Order: sequence, then structure tokens, then C-alpha cells
Amino acid sequence: MNASRHSKTDVLQAALKLLDEVGLPDLTMRKLAASLDLQPSALYWHYPNKQTLLAEVSNTIVNFARSVTAGKTWQETATLEALALRDALLAFRDGAEVVSSTLALGLGADRALERLENSIAIENRKLAHAAAESILFLVLGQVWHEQQRMQANSLGVVDNLELSGTPNLEIGIQLILQGLGIKINS
Amino acid sequence: MNASRHSKTDVLQAALKLLDEVGLPDLTMRKLAASLDLQPSALYWHYPNKQTLLAEVSNTIVNFARSVTAGKTWQETATLEALALRDALLAFRDGAEVVSSTLALGLGADRALERLENSIAIENRKLAHAAAESILFLVLGQVWHEQQRMQANSLGVVDNLELSGTPNLEIGIQLILQGLGIKINS
Repeated sequence: MNASRHSKTDVLQAALKLLDEVGLPDLTMRKLAASLDLQPSALYWHYPNKQTLLAEVSNTIVNFARSVTAGKTWQETATLEALALRDALLAFRDGAEVVSSTLALGLGADRALERLENSIAIENRKLAHAAAESILFLVLGQVWHEQQRMQANSLGVVDNLELSGTPNLEIGIQLILQGLGIKINS
Repeated sequence: MNASRHSKTDVLQAALKLLDEVGLPDLTMRKLAASLDLQPSALYWHYPNKQTLLAEVSNTIVNFARSVTAGKTWQETATLEALALRDALLAFRDGAEVVSSTLALGLGADRALERLENSIAIENRKLAHAAAESILFLVLGQVWHEQQRMQANSLGVVDNLELSGTPNLEIGIQLILQGLGIKINS
């Protein structure tokens, strides 16, 4: 009953564990409180609402993306950044949905776009921003698709779905970066 | 109680109406049956399960995309196809989520990818497929973001969020198509 018995970090860790166990649709403040042996009201001591908690979960997911060593070209670096983000999203159950909802609400996960944008070394920063945003939405859209298939497979909703992996995602990223070459030269 | 009182089309129309009223998370077979004054079991006469019904809803959304007149270049046509798809998704509450889940389960909405793919007039069909898939996921990821913001605004979850519109989406689509120009020439 004593909120101070659990630090904010404890709550976040418990939320990540619960996400892995039950998935985003069933991640409720009530279940989270129960997993910590707390009253739901005690959680609000650390997080004013579920959105704020999910924003912290999103930051954890986005920060889980590995550091990238600069490639031979900035296009190579940007591709590595995009793939690091994809892998981080895939490492957490419903990762794409958690991060997308936080981004939509403007509550966090900004680091994802920042890293992509910083890796795109062109002078026109407005265009770099547009390209980074496109890569971000492409990665989110693709991982979302993949994670819905994983979910369907684990529930046996339909016959086992092939997980397509990511060859086409890499091509998509490269097309955007190559298109940038034309756009700035023309 | 008599299922034949309602045709399959009636059920689909009622599902579209209910989607608009309550959104995808609350679109249940039970509520749908109630809106038609039927027992839930009667619905299964037309649709064996919710996934099959949602697949039909998805096909309706995707087929709502306007016909596109060929542009001066195939790149222009492909851009118009992508924007027609975006507008169709936006025309239905939670349109991106409904269509993405059906695509993930492999149950329908194939026409979306087909139209994009057909508009990309390059010889390398494997590359055309990869590019079309990238545009599809980019559009889904972007509209998903937009529709989550709409939802948050209507619930007043956070301070009124700006709906960013689509200038960056159009740039993203064009970058992919321009990148294709390099890819096939190199």
C-alpha cells in the first residue's frame, strides 16, 4: 500500500514485463498494480496516467536501439539506424504499436526520429526531416504488420503465417535514401 | 432470430456503421448483432468469425479508393494511386488499423498492393513489388499515426494535437519512386 516501497524504475520494469506477458491491449494499470502488489492508486503517484507510463515504455524501446558506427557513406549510416530501430521495435511485444501511439500523442519516443534525421547528411534540413519521417513511418508500418502476424500465429487465429522478414523493408529504405540523391541534385 | 431476415450486405453495412460509431476496439460481434436486433449466433451464418467480417470491411475500404486517371508519367500515376489509398483509409474510422490487420492475417485487402504495383511501370517486377509494399507500409504507418491523433483529440486525452496533413507523406512516396529510377538505371 506504500507507494514509496517501489521506485519509478520498479514500476517501469514491471510494465515492460507485463507487456511481454499479456501484450498492449491487456496492459492495464489495474493488472500492473496487481503485479506489484499495489493498489492502482499507488501507481499514479509515479505516473499520472497510462499514457505517461506508455511514453516511458516507448522511450525504453527506442533507446534499446543499438548504437550505430558510421558507415562508408551517410546513406549506409542512415540504413543502419533504420534497421537498429526496426530491431528494437521487434524486441518488444507490440513494440510498434506502443511507440506509434506515444509518437501520435506527442508524449515521447522523439529519439527515433532524431537519430534518423541526424544520419541524413544533406544540406536541406526540411527535406532530411521529411525523409526521416517517411523512414520512421515505413519502419513502424512494416513492424506493425510483422507483429500482428506474430500475434495471430501465437493465437492460432489463422494457418501459420510466414514471417516475411525484412528484405523489402531494406529496399524501401534504400529507395528513399537514393531518391534523396536525385531530389537534392535536381 | 431469423438470419435470412438480413442479407450478408445488411450485416456488412451495419458493421461499417458501427465502426464509425464506436471504433475498431469496441466493434464486437455482440454489439453488431444487437444493432441488427439479432442473436450473435445468427451473424455466424454469414461470417464464420470476426476476422472474416473485418476482411470484408477492409475490402470495402480499399475499394473505396477512387479510380485514378493515368498521369503524364507512371511516377505520377503511382503517386495518385498512393494518395487515393490514403484518402480511402482516412475516410473510415480506424481505417488503417482495420486494413493493416486484414493484410497481416492474409485475409484480404490485396487490391491495395495490386493497384500500387500495377502502376509502377518498370521491367524488374520484383523491385516493383518491393517498392509497392514500401509505399503501402508507409501510407499505413502515416495514416495510423494520423488516426491515433484524431482519436486522441476526440477523447481529449492530450491537448489538441495538430493534424499534420500529408506534405511529408507525398515527399516520402516521391522519394521511393525517384529512388527506383536510380535503382533500375544502375
